[in-house]
Amino acid sequence: MHTKSPVIIDLKFDQEQVAAALKGAFPDREVINLLHPASRKRDLSGVEYAVVWRPGADLFERAKDLKVVFSGGAGVDHVLNLPGLPDVPLVRFVDETLTTRMSEWVVMQCLLHLRQHAAYEALRRERVWRELDQPEASDMTVGIMGFGVLGQDAARKLKTLGFNVIGWSKSGRAVKGFEVFDEAGLNTFLAKTDILVGLLPLTPDTKGIFNTGLFTRLSRKGPFGAPVFINAGRGGSQVEADIVASINDGTLRGASLDVFEQEPLPLESPFWAMDKVFLTPHAAAASDVGALFDHVAIQIARYESGKPLEHLVDRSAGY
Amino acid sequence: MHTKSPVIIDLKFDQEQVAAALKGAFPDREVINLLHPASRKRDLSGVEYAVVWRPGADLFERAKDLKVVFSGGAGVDHVLNLPGLPDVPLVRFVDETLTTRMSEWVVMQCLLHLRQHAAYEALRRERVWRELDQPEASDMTVGIMGFGVLGQDAARKLKTLGFNVIGWSKSGRAVKGFEVFDEAGLNTFLAKTDILVGLLPLTPDTKGIFNTGLFTRLSRKGPFGAPVFINAGRGGSQVEADIVASINDGTLRGASLDVFEQEPLPLESPFWAMDKVFLTPHAAAASDVGALFDHVAIQIARYESGKPLEHLVDRSAGY
Ligand SMILES: NC(=O)c1ccc[n+]([C@@H]2O[C@H](COP(=O)([O-])OP(=O)(O)OC[C@H]3O[C@@H](n4cnc5c(N)ncnc54)[C@H](OP(=O)(O)O)[C@@H]3O)[C@@H](O)[C@H]2O)c1
Ligand SMILES: NC(=O)c1ccc[n+]([C@@H]2O[C@H](COP(=O)([O-])OP(=O)(O)OC[C@H]3O[C@@H](n4cnc5c(N)ncnc54)[C@H](OP(=O)(O)O)[C@@H]3O)[C@@H](O)[C@H]2O)c1
Repeated sequence: MHTKSPVIIDLKFDQEQVAAALKGAFPDREVINLLHPASRKRDLSGVEYAVVWRPGADLFERAKDLKVVFSGGAGVDHVLNLPGLPDVPLVRFVDETLTTRMSEWVVMQCLLHLRQHAAYEALRRERVWRELDQPEASDMTVGIMGFGVLGQDAARKLKTLGFNVIGWSKSGRAVKGFEVFDEAGLNTFLAKTDILVGLLPLTPDTKGIFNTGLFTRLSRKGPFGAPVFINAGRGGSQVEADIVASINDGTLRGASLDVFEQEPLPLESPFWAMDKVFLTPHAAAASDVGALFDHVAIQIARYESGKPLEHLVDRSAGY
Repeated sequence: MHTKSPVIIDLKFDQEQVAAALKGAFPDREVINLLHPASRKRDLSGVEYAVVWRPGADLFERAKDLKVVFSGGAGVDHVLNLPGLPDVPLVRFVDETLTTRMSEWVVMQCLLHLRQHAAYEALRRERVWRELDQPEASDMTVGIMGFGVLGQDAARKLKTLGFNVIGWSKSGRAVKGFEVFDEAGLNTFLAKTDILVGLLPLTPDTKGIFNTGLFTRLSRKGPFGAPVFINAGRGGSQVEADIVASINDGTLRGASLDVFEQEPLPLESPFWAMDKVFLTPHAAAASDVGALFDHVAIQIARYESGKPLEHLVDRSAGY
């Protein structure tokens, strides 16, 4: 019987969580955790699988025989730019728990802006009891840029809450229940959008896409007179100096950011002190490591039995 | 032709909103706005309808011929205790926009606690970038006390977000898709509940129901080890000294309050300064005054054409 290839684990996650999740995972093959000191000099030749999140720069030099690379997250920008990435299938992480968590975050942020949480917190600090004029969800349109697995799930949940929701994607592919725009429809999409939600992958096309030029094309006809920007895709898609300036000059009413140009967010970033900005530390939808290993095991089993891999990345598109 | 009875308006709401909504409302009858100085001495005999929110104490003495009283809100505790309330049908306000707004508020508050917003805000003030262990909605059970129009709508939306949801009502009436408990099942209900949501009317039975004795029976088996209390029913149902003590001694992890024993919340209330408590000024679900007048007009038309009134209050039950 052919021995099953080991699987390399190179995940810059919480190592306690990784260790806990590895217990019982991949029972039929060896696991090589590269973050374990014992693995530092391990010969990786002959190893066919690697599960990675911001992997070591020398990984692909050391592991020359990889047949499939698995991203530890939904995004693959952390892998695609690595020198030596072999020309083998790249599988990203798609999982219900990750999707659910992202939608929790997106719905909460949209509601925080709709329900004027920052303004109420400011009144509260002054111990002022004052009810604010309150539009309802159906008075606002949420425009989601990046209408894939995450964007569509958030859209369905926002719609249940009463928001109008529209989408924007590369293909403009129809999605039941939603109006979806493509590149050519961007201006129309933006002009309808009161709350802009970014759930785009970081690719050469989406780098810096969230900038002043785009913010000024958003709707100012909503009940608050100025739009809101929410991003949980990738920080590289946003121009932070433009966000700061747009909030300060009223182009944007507020923002919610989970991702940043530089992470951790530098101490000197103005965002920390901006009342109109809600921040979380790239925590919108953490990968559940147990679910990740289950997903990888399923895909390896498919691969070894000759079935096609799922959630494959299109290298030329970059996502 | 019989002249149509005027309708009395006695709404302690924002008077600009009332005036705007009155434009074009009740085109077929006279409107007597009691908050208008000109109406102070108006003879109200013969007037058959009154729409009230915290009405003047002498209203029922002056208007002796009322045939239907309409509450300006979903709750009727502000009317039921008034001396001289005539024994005529009392109709409460049930409306999609009110229901939707309440669910926005409830969903937002549940998410704020699930997603550890207070803890993240505290880290942020120190400019600390740290991801917290994050359970997901399906790890938590939201128990809703008061499973009527508002409770059930919030339940459906919370369920879409992934929360487990159970209900508690007087009758324990079955509601499709949810386990509903009655009085006898209260302990079982509480022992399952990680996030308690109060959407009860204020009645003699529900006065002070949210107290330490009840909080100590809530689940401590959830991912955070301590329960959360959320109330948007009526402040009279909660014992605020108990909420403060329960948060301070860890019986409760946090709270969200829209209603208070005394409103406006007194300046000296400890809640203003408690980081673990989210506050709003009885603003969870403002009555849309235009929608209220539409609803009243529809019910008057039903009444005058001999059809049964809807949303009638059961006086003996108190809601
Ligand atoms: N903050 C976090 O915790 C967190 C967690 C997970 C994921 N993420 C980020 O979220 C991103 C989206 O994840 P997903 O699972 O939803 O990915 P996905 O299913 O691949 O969806 C990506 C969407 O973006 C669209 N898109 C890509 N490039 C575009 C372009 N140049 N112009 C217009 N639209 C473009 C795609 O269009 P088509 O539909 O036409 O292909 C698709 O609708 C990930 O790439 C990752 O960066 C963040
Ligand atoms: N904060 C705000 O802005 C705001 C806005 C609107 C309303 N409210 C409050 O929300 C309350 C609920 O509104 P709603 O429209 O959902 O009312 P509803 O449809 O009448 O529902 C009331 C629910 O409470 C239950 N209930 C009543 N007395 C009970 C008792 N003693 N023990 C157990 N359950 C009891 C009822 O049980 P059954 O199903 O067995 O009858 C019913 O499920 C209103 O009364 C009002 O006070 C607050």
